[in-house]
Amino acid sequence: MTQQTLEQLETPALLLDEAQMQRNIERMRSRLRRLGVGFRPHVKTNKSIEVSRRLMESPEGPITASTLLEADYFAQHGVRDILYAVCIAPNKLQHVMKLQDQGVRMSLILDNMETARILADGARGSGRSFEVLIEIDSDGHRSGVRPEAPELLEIARFLHGNGVTLKGVMTHAGASYDCKAPAEITAMAEQERAGAVRAAERLRAAGLPCPVVSVGSTPTALFAEQLAGVTEVRAGVFVFFDLVMAGLDVCRTDEIALSVLATVIGHQREKGWTLLDAGWMAMSRDRGTAGQRVDQGYGLVCDLDGRPLEDFILVGANQEHGIMARRSGAAGPLPAVGTQVRILPNHACSTAAQFRQYEVLGPEHSVTATWPRFSGW
Amino acid sequence: MTQQTLEQLETPALLLDEAQMQRNIERMRSRLRRLGVGFRPHVKTNKSIEVSRRLMESPEGPITASTLLEADYFAQHGVRDILYAVCIAPNKLQHVMKLQDQGVRMSLILDNMETARILADGARGSGRSFEVLIEIDSDGHRSGVRPEAPELLEIARFLHGNGVTLKGVMTHAGASYDCKAPAEITAMAEQERAGAVRAAERLRAAGLPCPVVSVGSTPTALFAEQLAGVTEVRAGVFVFFDLVMAGLDVCRTDEIALSVLATVIGHQREKGWTLLDAGWMAMSRDRGTAGQRVDQGYGLVCDLDGRPLEDFILVGANQEHGIMARRSGAAGPLPAVGTQVRILPNHACSTAAQFRQYEVLGPEHSVTATWPRFSGW
Repeated sequence: MTQQTLEQLETPALLLDEAQMQRNIERMRSRLRRLGVGFRPHVKTNKSIEVSRRLMESPEGPITASTLLEADYFAQHGVRDILYAVCIAPNKLQHVMKLQDQGVRMSLILDNMETARILADGARGSGRSFEVLIEIDSDGHRSGVRPEAPELLEIARFLHGNGVTLKGVMTHAGASYDCKAPAEITAMAEQERAGAVRAAERLRAAGLPCPVVSVGSTPTALFAEQLAGVTEVRAGVFVFFDLVMAGLDVCRTDEIALSVLATVIGHQREKGWTLLDAGWMAMSRDRGTAGQRVDQGYGLVCDLDGRPLEDFILVGANQEHGIMARRSGAAGPLPAVGTQVRILPNHACSTAAQFRQYEVLGPEHSVTATWPRFSGW
Repeated sequence: MTQQTLEQLETPALLLDEAQMQRNIERMRSRLRRLGVGFRPHVKTNKSIEVSRRLMESPEGPITASTLLEADYFAQHGVRDILYAVCIAPNKLQHVMKLQDQGVRMSLILDNMETARILADGARGSGRSFEVLIEIDSDGHRSGVRPEAPELLEIARFLHGNGVTLKGVMTHAGASYDCKAPAEITAMAEQERAGAVRAAERLRAAGLPCPVVSVGSTPTALFAEQLAGVTEVRAGVFVFFDLVMAGLDVCRTDEIALSVLATVIGHQREKGWTLLDAGWMAMSRDRGTAGQRVDQGYGLVCDLDGRPLEDFILVGANQEHGIMARRSGAAGPLPAVGTQVRILPNHACSTAAQFRQYEVLGPEHSVTATWPRFSGW
């Protein structure tokens, strides 16, 4: 393949700085080594075998997936240990069985007796076993049973007595995204750990198996002081990072490996506007920094070397148009038509999902490869 | 293909009610017939040949596209008259030429002298001609030159004298999405028409060609009282409609042809939450109704027959989880695990973009076909 440069790409395009990604991966790896826990990377952010290959401990996994399409895709690429980390719905059981038939060790999660009964019926009806983790609610932000809830033992006993393999407990402290400072994240990491470990202790005290204690989010994984009792960590967004993570001081903006390449296509000079060919279809509608100390609009605009144009902000976005203005309202020259910029995303998962491929950035504006990715279910 | 029913689909899935879509198309067609103008449907909402085939006046078009990937795809399906309705960027000219080489009549737009010079250079350098419409800013919401601006004639004269075919003017009153009532939309439609026609008159008075006067948005197309001087209308979202359009009284909620099928996967009963397997990855992060009279959260939840569960609202969304609660805060039974619901989207363009295919709904919960769609650039 002829090597391209940034300047030759059609815009918008999704850029991935490979060297920076590798540093982000190393940071997570060394952190988890120090904490003495296993790693089950979440592939929902990258949805690419090229990226995930660099994350996984072996070509067979393990990984965490957010959709069964991810499970299908990674199974086709040889992954054999997949946790589907959304409470299993009845209409997905057939699909899970197909993955099992391909030799994939699928782990499922659930947090309620209704689903436990459906799964037990499915196991009985199909004559097969399912491996299940019970989801624990360690922070009140979404799903899961509370670590002290009576239902925890009720669900576990029912599963264990009805042909379902009780693999353990898992939790995700999504509330860590709303922390205001690293000290709060460290406290949230301890809350996440303690909740999962407490649930595991209750199961074991009741004579039930609980080999796996799985926790994780990018912030808590990077700021946990200790993970005693935890067997594995899940995290995904760290591979790219994004402005929400930077707003939490989980990373610096110059550690964000993902950006959208866009081109200036016009101006409304009396308003101080510069129009770009990247709108919300490219950036996504995610405005995750809106509630943070610094609202980054639809993304932080940088030059081609990734240096922020500090005074500019993407104040608006139509489907294929981005509207860039000055934060300060100051006058001054605007970038000429044809100028390319790189825009750091609020949320790597949602921006990456808008694109079909990564353009892999090497040294000096070189584009060294194109890595496909997918979306959907 | 075996015919499926809604109940057999894996969720989340994107449902398209074909009969309702057909009624929406008929409404637009009869409206434009009465107004006596041509139709150049915008394919950016549907990105599907199956849907667009039902919109187009002939298998060869014309259509309006928002990306060159749309142009490629529809060209492969036989469309031969494509307006690329985003100001052309220098790095897209080679791609446009490839489309021309395939026999596609490509129309481009621009709104500034810098782009005009780039295009003239491109025409000269490649020995070919480009057809161009000048974009007019009729409402101050985005790009375009004002109808009375001196630059309008400057750009037109330059193009006409430098080997570029001046095809006319175009405008899009995107501000119609912010109107509060149909009377305001009617006024906006007249402003859009008057702006484009005034620009065309100025060109003609200067002895310049202006055969095409192109306007449009779904609200203004449906509420214009007259379109004297306009030759063609562009609109796209009307084919599906959405909650933003319903909030503007452009349609009723029962005219929305697009919905996301989701399944109840759990509850947090003490909070009154029902958890669904459709989060922002399925619905998109678009919160277009947040500023309207009724904030619909991440979407209006309906039963399988499309009847709204009026008291429920999707108050939150994680990547693959939707959190449904009662607007009133009232107590009462929550739908059981496994229950399917249909969620009407805030914005059809952004929700549809999250999916790879439409599940086509026929009578009595039947799924009569699967129509692929695409995203990206």
